[in-house]
Amino acid sequence: MKNNKISHEKDFIYGRNAVIEALLNAPDRINKILISKNITNDAKINEITQLAKNNSVVFQFVPKERFDSFCDVANQGVIAYVSPVSYTDLYDFLNTKQQDYARVIVLDGVVDPHNLGAIIRTAACAGYNAVIIPSRRSAQVNATVEKTSAGAINYIPVIQVNSLSNAIDKLKDNDYWIIAADAHGKDNYFDIDFTDMNFALVMGGEETGVSKNTLKKSDFVVKIPMLRNFNSLNVSNAACAIIYESLRQNICKSRKNK
Amino acid sequence: MKNNKISHEKDFIYGRNAVIEALLNAPDRINKILISKNITNDAKINEITQLAKNNSVVFQFVPKERFDSFCDVANQGVIAYVSPVSYTDLYDFLNTKQQDYARVIVLDGVVDPHNLGAIIRTAACAGYNAVIIPSRRSAQVNATVEKTSAGAINYIPVIQVNSLSNAIDKLKDNDYWIIAADAHGKDNYFDIDFTDMNFALVMGGEETGVSKNTLKKSDFVVKIPMLRNFNSLNVSNAACAIIYESLRQNICKSRKNK
Repeated sequence: MKNNKISHEKDFIYGRNAVIEALLNAPDRINKILISKNITNDAKINEITQLAKNNSVVFQFVPKERFDSFCDVANQGVIAYVSPVSYTDLYDFLNTKQQDYARVIVLDGVVDPHNLGAIIRTAACAGYNAVIIPSRRSAQVNATVEKTSAGAINYIPVIQVNSLSNAIDKLKDNDYWIIAADAHGKDNYFDIDFTDMNFALVMGGEETGVSKNTLKKSDFVVKIPMLRNFNSLNVSNAACAIIYESLRQNICKSRKNK
Repeated sequence: MKNNKISHEKDFIYGRNAVIEALLNAPDRINKILISKNITNDAKINEITQLAKNNSVVFQFVPKERFDSFCDVANQGVIAYVSPVSYTDLYDFLNTKQQDYARVIVLDGVVDPHNLGAIIRTAACAGYNAVIIPSRRSAQVNATVEKTSAGAINYIPVIQVNSLSNAIDKLKDNDYWIIAADAHGKDNYFDIDFTDMNFALVMGGEETGVSKNTLKKSDFVVKIPMLRNFNSLNVSNAACAIIYESLRQNICKSRKNK
């Protein structure tokens, strides 16, 4: 596959789970791991050093003070210098045969890196095949996203596209159904049958929602019911409700077919 | 109802949606609203000033520089000085008749205020009746939680208890079923029938999960299926998947009964 390099803010990842996931799934990305000296006898740190040894990754204990000067984020005493994650090309993705029906999530203007990271994490857990983001007016993959994804970024391809509109056309040409989430949607999301089709689930940005152009191109526009007269869910939670409903339907259907 | 005052880090809320929700639902809590002078012709700011006028709440435009010195968080140009949110007492809650079966969420050690805020928001959207948190080893309601909840904190009671163990006993005495989420659960969460009963959904902390003591007291321990060999969902996303499944079941059941 052709890959476009991500321009990271800083090429490091931090946090114990994020570093463990990188060691398990993409050890070649890691140049060096730094561990704060004051952490002793911690199960996850032991797992990190063991995995590092197994994968011939260099690690080093450094004094807490020196360690803190490297990086001012909540790093849980572990940071790893890494090569940037690579974005996947949409054309390459569509030309790679998937095992089953393909399910992707398209983010139309999600700007908060914590939301992007959480959605990548949920999509990975639910076995989705890719996350698609536009190259402008969107959070991009950076250290915060890697941390919030808890390393899921190494499990699922992230596809960056210059035009979301063109990307949706390409998905439609490749037999994907387009399902957009919008507060004014016609059906509740759980009234859609997510089985037996390739689909792209489109979630809108925190403030803006799914763009009008994208809504027009969608085959289904679904809403999430709200029981109180209250505005809406956080976008990563909204995405999770729909993503896991699609998984529930697939699991229940595959049971029936047995 | 008897109320215990929350000790806020700072008694203000920030962000346009959070301030709008407070104006809509709890205008009496607001002492004064400050708006950054450089924002003109913004629909949400107009909504805020109109709501403030309607509710006789004082608001003031201040220069951007002065405004920024008040508060260093991402405030979107609006902050409101407020009286603290009040916690609800568990005993009072249990003695208040609910319209239908009651559904509450119990957080056993959720320490990240963003997760607490997001879960309060989801619980409010899905019509849950309360959120229960312990007074120690847990995030408490503060300005970050109010902001992340997007004002949902004004729509759903938050109950703070000294002992989660005692609280669960009390819930059981009041005919609540206890449903805990745990990676080693026996059933998938969607195989539980959430209808026709009062229940408390227990979610564990980010690092620790549900405590052993709580798991022992639970009537059901459910898991969220993971399709990749990947650790787990963010706790607010995990809570959302289960909360919205319970809502889906209730909506689908009430349709059948019509």
